[in-house]
Amino acid sequence: MFRTHTCGELRIAHAGQEVTLAGWVQRVRKMGGMTFIDLRDRFGITQLTFNQEKNADLCEKANKLGREFVIQVIGKVTERSNKNTQLPTGAIEILVNSLNVLNESQIPPFTIEDNTDGGDDIRMKYRYLDLRRTLVRENLELRHKIAFETRRYLDQLGFLEVETPVLIGSTPEGARDFVVPSRMNPGEFYALPQSPQTLKQLLMVSGFDRYFQIAKCFRDEDLRADRQPEFTQIDCEMSFVEQEDVLQTFEGMMKHLFRFVKNIDFTEDFLRMTWQDAMKYYGSDKPDIRFDMRLVELKEAVGGHNFVVFDSAEYVGGISASGCASYTRKQIDELTDFVKRPQIAAKGLVYIRCEENGSFKSSIDKFYTQEDLAGIASLFNAKSGDLILILAGDKTKTQKALCELRLEMGERLGLRDKNVYAPLWIIDFPLFEWDEETQRYFAMHHPFTSPKPEDIPLLDKDPGAVRANAYDLVVNGVELGGGSIRIFDSALQNKMFEKLGFSPQKAEAQFGFLMNAFKYGAPPHGGLAFGLDRLVALFAGLDSIRDCIAFPKNNSGRDVMLDAPSTIDSAQLDELNLRIDLQTT
Amino acid sequence: MFRTHTCGELRIAHAGQEVTLAGWVQRVRKMGGMTFIDLRDRFGITQLTFNQEKNADLCEKANKLGREFVIQVIGKVTERSNKNTQLPTGAIEILVNSLNVLNESQIPPFTIEDNTDGGDDIRMKYRYLDLRRTLVRENLELRHKIAFETRRYLDQLGFLEVETPVLIGSTPEGARDFVVPSRMNPGEFYALPQSPQTLKQLLMVSGFDRYFQIAKCFRDEDLRADRQPEFTQIDCEMSFVEQEDVLQTFEGMMKHLFRFVKNIDFTEDFLRMTWQDAMKYYGSDKPDIRFDMRLVELKEAVGGHNFVVFDSAEYVGGISASGCASYTRKQIDELTDFVKRPQIAAKGLVYIRCEENGSFKSSIDKFYTQEDLAGIASLFNAKSGDLILILAGDKTKTQKALCELRLEMGERLGLRDKNVYAPLWIIDFPLFEWDEETQRYFAMHHPFTSPKPEDIPLLDKDPGAVRANAYDLVVNGVELGGGSIRIFDSALQNKMFEKLGFSPQKAEAQFGFLMNAFKYGAPPHGGLAFGLDRLVALFAGLDSIRDCIAFPKNNSGRDVMLDAPSTIDSAQLDELNLRIDLQTT
Repeated sequence: MFRTHTCGELRIAHAGQEVTLAGWVQRVRKMGGMTFIDLRDRFGITQLTFNQEKNADLCEKANKLGREFVIQVIGKVTERSNKNTQLPTGAIEILVNSLNVLNESQIPPFTIEDNTDGGDDIRMKYRYLDLRRTLVRENLELRHKIAFETRRYLDQLGFLEVETPVLIGSTPEGARDFVVPSRMNPGEFYALPQSPQTLKQLLMVSGFDRYFQIAKCFRDEDLRADRQPEFTQIDCEMSFVEQEDVLQTFEGMMKHLFRFVKNIDFTEDFLRMTWQDAMKYYGSDKPDIRFDMRLVELKEAVGGHNFVVFDSAEYVGGISASGCASYTRKQIDELTDFVKRPQIAAKGLVYIRCEENGSFKSSIDKFYTQEDLAGIASLFNAKSGDLILILAGDKTKTQKALCELRLEMGERLGLRDKNVYAPLWIIDFPLFEWDEETQRYFAMHHPFTSPKPEDIPLLDKDPGAVRANAYDLVVNGVELGGGSIRIFDSALQNKMFEKLGFSPQKAEAQFGFLMNAFKYGAPPHGGLAFGLDRLVALFAGLDSIRDCIAFPKNNSGRDVMLDAPSTIDSAQLDELNLRIDLQTT
Repeated sequence: MFRTHTCGELRIAHAGQEVTLAGWVQRVRKMGGMTFIDLRDRFGITQLTFNQEKNADLCEKANKLGREFVIQVIGKVTERSNKNTQLPTGAIEILVNSLNVLNESQIPPFTIEDNTDGGDDIRMKYRYLDLRRTLVRENLELRHKIAFETRRYLDQLGFLEVETPVLIGSTPEGARDFVVPSRMNPGEFYALPQSPQTLKQLLMVSGFDRYFQIAKCFRDEDLRADRQPEFTQIDCEMSFVEQEDVLQTFEGMMKHLFRFVKNIDFTEDFLRMTWQDAMKYYGSDKPDIRFDMRLVELKEAVGGHNFVVFDSAEYVGGISASGCASYTRKQIDELTDFVKRPQIAAKGLVYIRCEENGSFKSSIDKFYTQEDLAGIASLFNAKSGDLILILAGDKTKTQKALCELRLEMGERLGLRDKNVYAPLWIIDFPLFEWDEETQRYFAMHHPFTSPKPEDIPLLDKDPGAVRANAYDLVVNGVELGGGSIRIFDSALQNKMFEKLGFSPQKAEAQFGFLMNAFKYGAPPHGGLAFGLDRLVALFAGLDSIRDCIAFPKNNSGRDVMLDAPSTIDSAQLDELNLRIDLQTT
């Protein structure tokens, strides 16, 4: 071992001991006849001191060390006169009497500090240096801890972690599969799993009863900031359960993680909200309920005043922002621009200021009397000083726009504190989603999701009204996970396929092995999957999942450090019976 | 929840309680007016009873249940008159008063019993039914436990589990890579990792200090019984360590696993043996030391007796099988056939029987006197009743053949008890391996393995004599894992590449990112990787790793259950800019 202690370990109680430390040179400072070095490793920073008077040669050697050199020192732990209370080791320093350079370092392309001077691109290219930064390393330490505590909780409850294969068959789940050509089976391809969904259902048919896996999943999608071609799920499934059992079990898991990772105790049950209410009051199936500011429907209240924008709209709704009546014209213009951005695409923004004197000032004063406006304000329970913001238009789009506006106002009002966690179960999702383009129903979750038994009669009459035994866990507006009770009855499953427009042949081709398995005694079962990357990002207060992944890919799916993907030998292509055909279209 | 208890939970203390159970019908037996059902789930089997007299309808319903039906019953826990001491629940039975068929089952294609009537192929096709068998399920339970305890041990020591990417660049490590065409980067391919070797070394450069990962690895090799295209490694790496630290840490891990998984305490240090000794005494770098029967070199002892087979051979050696002098001609012929099989390819087998009366009987009596034979026997410390078996020829091949013969004799003598574990570190591996075909040296482990510092001067003079800081852990003749101290000095690494015949350009192209990383302060580091599949197979007493994998592939790399790999749409090929070109050669 190159050390007796780590750089985060020594305290005043060690004073007088001779120790050996090894690590990286974070900083070299010369002061008078002394040289001070901050020696860093994963565990902390320890100050080394060299005295020009006592040992000039050694001090000279220390002065020549560059940033990020790897060194080993032997010295004596000594109480500091000038203690650093910011540092766990700040009460001591090491009076070095031997210095060994283990490895030199070129000058790193950016500073290895929390506030680095390195831009995103260079830090990704030199990710191994970026990972030396405390902020980045801590995200991965957190990730380890979350994964470990997840396993500890599930193991205690009798869940078995079962590894399912990565080289599987193509099981279309909405996104594109990554495929892997098989050399031994010419012309054929494996697919990488988008999730272990069907395999975990097979494990339930096998009687595994309680399964989980922290599993890599793969989707060949065009990437956004919070998407990666490979990502990690905490994938779970249980047998002989109903929805309530699943919710209880995994609410327990989240509470366990909050307790053991974040030191936060949730003693109350998580709130639950139906999908209908979530859409109605928050315009979203993943509402951020750290703050209230609910959407209020106004269509009835505002009608018949000859204001054509409202009268012609399918939906009129708004929010009330507490204490924002003092917003200037400029601020309101900013909000108008915000909702008019192409991503949101609202046509305009109506405001009502609830003035301190009890009067109202609005952009629709032409159409509404003070009394009318007071009536509208009362629907929001708005007080003097509040600002009501109203949008109108197509129902779904306008609710979505109001959702965005609400989040923006929450942000401006400081209501979205990253250290506050507001978990919420969304339940009673619709089973189907209507697709305008293809004029047919899609499964909102996936084709194995069970309808609520009481809604089964609606399958033929009114598919859009059928609710599913499906649920999502949302925290602070982030969908952390979701799942459902599955169909375990072959007849019902066939009916689902029919409703989803699968021919029996297509259903057989894609899900035949699962349908076959269901013929041999499938138990009632259900489960869910959490996005581990999102969970870590949430606990770390990160905006992008990329920051909690050791070696992430960029938006073109490239690992710029490894320079992957890359071309391969023609010999290898021959072995795989493949040719590249770069189309010019 | 569909049950109040599992099928493995109820004891005499529960007598009198009303319970709800759910599970699979294992067996239905009618005896007199009674029907008995064994109800099975993952946790055990509980006997249900139905009384024709008391409730004829219910009993009738029970009689109609088929094997593997999924049922739910409500009933009263009752003490059995006829207790089954083989079964943890054998003291009680459930007097059923309500029966609910949750799902029917077709007659399964083979019996769901430890001794099934199903052949290998059908069990693989219906793997989800095969997994219902207790024997198979227990292997996966064991796998879960080993993985969990591995993580618990390493977490306690401050190791961080870091997920490395599955879509990486091609880093040739001896075997073929599986590749994944990139849609977003036309004509380019990701590779699936053969191991996270280079990535874990980058993590050491990043200062992660102690890393592990239970990681899926992929090799596109032609398959054998104990190979799978995807397999799982317990991959580990440490910084600021020397070989001794790595051995201590992972000997500790193995002892932890033996203790907490197998309930076996290893209080002694594991034996260590140099690679040289392993080859000399066992003819193998993974000797099974559950039994002794060492190889004895005889070249000197047997020379000069005009026996041309021995005189012309590079190597003569043998083993002594205790108590086998009574082997018949037929038995010795069997052994001769055994060593002549093409896999072993010895030319013949010489025996010396150490008779009970102190005389010797051998197949080379023509050339050797009784005294000569006594002299040979004494080299083996052979006693009356022992049988000496001798092979001659090329040194490497003959040692290997003797190794096989030794294992065969160990098997015949019952010396390879699956419940006995004999762990052994093999150390001091050669750094290079000479390849006759290409007339050049290859890295025995991989190009990053560090030579022993004292052997570095030999790198130029006598590369074949350079020993590596490399080690394997062998248990019962199975190589469970191996690793090395890595080179962390760029100059030495470049020298290694040169010795291995890499041009600077080729080294840069293949390992440039790692060599670059080493310029920024790489710490001394080393590690190892265990094969999780092999470890589970060893603990479970299995001959093939396939039996401890939930959904294994067959020898053609096919998952016959999923029917993967398979063809894909031409539209998908177009998107990937690929064409299939099935060559007729």
